[in-house]
Amino acid sequence: MQKIVSKAITHGVYIVTTRTKEKVNGMTAAWVSQVSMQPLLLMVSIAPARYTHGLIKDSGYFAINSLAEGQEDIAQFFGFRTGRKFDKFKDIAYFDAPNGSPVLSQALAFFECKLIETFTAGDHSLFVGNIVEAKILKSDQNPLMFRWEDYF
Amino acid sequence: MQKIVSKAITHGVYIVTTRTKEKVNGMTAAWVSQVSMQPLLLMVSIAPARYTHGLIKDSGYFAINSLAEGQEDIAQFFGFRTGRKFDKFKDIAYFDAPNGSPVLSQALAFFECKLIETFTAGDHSLFVGNIVEAKILKSDQNPLMFRWEDYF
Repeated sequence: MQKIVSKAITHGVYIVTTRTKEKVNGMTAAWVSQVSMQPLLLMVSIAPARYTHGLIKDSGYFAINSLAEGQEDIAQFFGFRTGRKFDKFKDIAYFDAPNGSPVLSQALAFFECKLIETFTAGDHSLFVGNIVEAKILKSDQNPLMFRWEDYF
Repeated sequence: MQKIVSKAITHGVYIVTTRTKEKVNGMTAAWVSQVSMQPLLLMVSIAPARYTHGLIKDSGYFAINSLAEGQEDIAQFFGFRTGRKFDKFKDIAYFDAPNGSPVLSQALAFFECKLIETFTAGDHSLFVGNIVEAKILKSDQNPLMFRWEDYF
């Protein structure tokens, strides 16, 4: 059934980042959607076992970095190892959004969000954030589409 | 800011349908995402003012019908008028999913879901459903991508 979802439910590819007092980290996520118009809210679904899950709860802010076509390598880099014992940003160019969330300089666009709600749905948490800053960084490029077979 | 979201957050285009004792209805939605792996859950965000919102709460089941490339006309038809005083399915070919949700015969794929959670996020409700039936109807076609400018 996952195969049918992957074929017929459309997702982009994002690096979800956050900063706590001790740490910056980020992870690849595809399950992102707008969920409200006013206020303008985004939702990202993250498994509780992920290191980023706890960091977002600590931070209260996160950034959704949209990847561009051709950036599968960035998605693979941020998707396949944990940041618990490794600084994923060591060799990555980034700058800070207003509330400190790291923004990948190579991203297509970013959205820094203030966490306003956390819901549980099955084996994931839905983090709902109010967009406090948004910017297109590469206006001449298209978003990367999530295709299951590119990663698994 | 909505313009930046529309450019950099990727959504498909879906007809969300449901059946109550008295009525079948459907509406166009873009804010759909997978949110859990086990169980396999989908989320759709719907404004409370929409007629379909109340029908889904009454029904307890809904279907996500994924549209294919080139089906913007179906999205426009289901998006721009309410079903309160009008039978949107009068001239539409459809069949019933196992729990009665109408499935558009022309859809790329459908997912019938049992409603398991309803969360409020800003001006919308997040309906989270457990997939009980899923099928690809057009295996040779690609999903329709949501582009704001096609509808507004």
